[in-house]
Amino acid sequence: MITKTRLEAFSDGVIAIIITIMVLEIKIPHIDTIDALKPLIPVFISYVLSFLYVGIYWTNHHHLIHTAQSVNGKILWANLNLLFWISLIPFVTGWMGENHFSKWPVVFYGIILVLNSLSYKILAQVLIRHHGNESVLSKTIGKDLKGWGSIAAYALAIGVSFISSWLGLVLYFLVAAVWLIPDRRIETAG
Amino acid sequence: MITKTRLEAFSDGVIAIIITIMVLEIKIPHIDTIDALKPLIPVFISYVLSFLYVGIYWTNHHHLIHTAQSVNGKILWANLNLLFWISLIPFVTGWMGENHFSKWPVVFYGIILVLNSLSYKILAQVLIRHHGNESVLSKTIGKDLKGWGSIAAYALAIGVSFISSWLGLVLYFLVAAVWLIPDRRIETAG
Amino acid sequence: MITKTRLEAFSDGVIAIIITIMVLEIKIPHIDTIDALKPLIPVFISYVLSFLYVGIYWTNHHHLIHTAQSVNGKILWANLNLLFWISLIPFVTGWMGENHFSKWPVVFYGIILVLNSLSYKILAQVLIRHHGNESVLSKTIGKDLKGWGSIAAYALAIGVSFISSWLGLVLYFLVAAVWLIPDRRIETAG
Amino acid sequence: MITKTRLEAFSDGVIAIIITIMVLEIKIPHIDTIDALKPLIPVFISYVLSFLYVGIYWTNHHHLIHTAQSVNGKILWANLNLLFWISLIPFVTGWMGENHFSKWPVVFYGIILVLNSLSYKILAQVLIRHHGNESVLSKTIGKDLKGWGSIAAYALAIGVSFISSWLGLVLYFLVAAVWLIPDRRIETAG
Repeated sequence: MITKTRLEAFSDGVIAIIITIMVLEIKIPHIDTIDALKPLIPVFISYVLSFLYVGIYWTNHHHLIHTAQSVNGKILWANLNLLFWISLIPFVTGWMGENHFSKWPVVFYGIILVLNSLSYKILAQVLIRHHGNESVLSKTIGKDLKGWGSIAAYALAIGVSFISSWLGLVLYFLVAAVWLIPDRRIETAG
Repeated sequence: MITKTRLEAFSDGVIAIIITIMVLEIKIPHIDTIDALKPLIPVFISYVLSFLYVGIYWTNHHHLIHTAQSVNGKILWANLNLLFWISLIPFVTGWMGENHFSKWPVVFYGIILVLNSLSYKILAQVLIRHHGNESVLSKTIGKDLKGWGSIAAYALAIGVSFISSWLGLVLYFLVAAVWLIPDRRIETAG
Repeated sequence: MITKTRLEAFSDGVIAIIITIMVLEIKIPHIDTIDALKPLIPVFISYVLSFLYVGIYWTNHHHLIHTAQSVNGKILWANLNLLFWISLIPFVTGWMGENHFSKWPVVFYGIILVLNSLSYKILAQVLIRHHGNESVLSKTIGKDLKGWGSIAAYALAIGVSFISSWLGLVLYFLVAAVWLIPDRRIETAG
Repeated sequence: MITKTRLEAFSDGVIAIIITIMVLEIKIPHIDTIDALKPLIPVFISYVLSFLYVGIYWTNHHHLIHTAQSVNGKILWANLNLLFWISLIPFVTGWMGENHFSKWPVVFYGIILVLNSLSYKILAQVLIRHHGNESVLSKTIGKDLKGWGSIAAYALAIGVSFISSWLGLVLYFLVAAVWLIPDRRIETAG
């Protein structure tokens, strides 16, 4: 049986770096006027959104692994798979911010969110299979309507972005707002 | 009840990255003369100031969480909120250093310091509410005159910077100097 | 006797940073069309390959140190030596991706993989010498045919790359695929 | 009494980032010939030297804190002071490598090494004062002839660099070689 300590430590490290390197995309202006900050506003908004999402993944990951009792090789790789997709968030964040939330960057942002959600689901499934259907972990994850709902909302946002990418952006913010309310199912059970 | 281990580990990771990426703003000169280092002096001073401030936040965060017994979802997000504002310190540090401590960058540096202080206060409050008013944590934080005094000093520095931004900078250094003396209230209680 | 906790924590930190900074090589395009992503495809493939390899080193390192009971100064340096060679993976990854998998970058990628494998073997040997030939650790590592096989495959890939560097790349992916299957020898013994 | 866990974790994080960001100075060439790697050789040598030094600081820090039983506010700041000077190593590393080990960069590299050594000594002194002269920690640190010898060697290397900076570089490598032998005094006592 492998301890989960290093899985947590490594994930914390990777997520901490991802959440922090995004700030490097807010390029320091060479001029010292207050106007020099204006072009940075979309990059900043994009950073705020992604900080929220990476934060959400960190807190949910925290809760999910907290209820786990042990891990195996498959779980390590399902976790690495999730970290891989989280690691692409800085790229789409920068692309979206620099292009003022135009169509394709917003669409791709949504695709990365969907892939992150699915990877999170895979990790949850692998954990359930390892702990058994009757485990506390399995019961606390349950049907995960919130997770499926988010994926549906991302898909909607992607579709909507072909008409108005700003509306897509608003949807991403709304889903993030819903997740800010911590997942009481796992929290109370843990 | 959620353990605070990962909150500490994640915060350590984020703060470690923030304190280190600031050094990347000291761009390596392509010339090998000693004169090539001169233009880097303001960037270096700016780095020293921010290293002190991020160091102060790390030590205070260390003390604050040390006295905590458990955490909840709200505390996780109050902590992420604090990390968000700390993550903007490298940006204002670079902007201030590159523009030789001129008015607007110094003003914005102060604004970020105020927002950091307020976020720290929110985190402290959320922790007190979770532990109760009669807890050791609540008593050690107390009225936090040092925290309020700092915010007042930052506000003063911001105002003063419209007359002389160098005076504002001196004030930031003075507040940092006061904080270098470790917070004995929490330390002795912990 | 030195505890292995910090060796694990430090290695996790370094590997987490290495796996994450590689993503910075996928430069954000200034244009918002879907065509702007096309030139990034080789850089992305290169990133995927190296993410797999760094992930493999992390999971194997996890298993290897897990079976260790204590560490000494030599082990610390054998570990730092491994981290040094892992730290060169982002460089060869970027070089290979930017030059669309042409001969020399693919050859150098293989050389770095060989040096990583040998460093891992040195670490394993130093650990075995510290724990004794009759230790659980020694028995679980065994003859390490998988490790020697990988080095042989890298050497083959390097040679093949002088004829077709794409074939070399395919070989690197195949070896990675073999390693994705977690090392059951150590896992079950641990 | 404050636990040393977070001091170790934070230091591990900072040192891990410092040792890794230095590799970013080895800029990826846009050409795919083997000749494109030649201009990188001095940058690479500089990286190797600094990797050794940061590695030495990490292992010594590991041993030093390992023997400590508790920490206080002063120790936290003496530690932050050491991390500050270590954080300047990537800068002098890059400057030295890019300018092919010419006089001033090599001199400055030595100055930073001296300041690092002194900061390490301050940390050791603050730890001794906290644990008492009769403590195990105090006895294992002892007179620290190796530390003073290194500072003397750095000073010599700085002076010699005004005649031949290559000789200065050789001296830095020699001191690093001496430190590679782990500090048995602390290791056996711990």
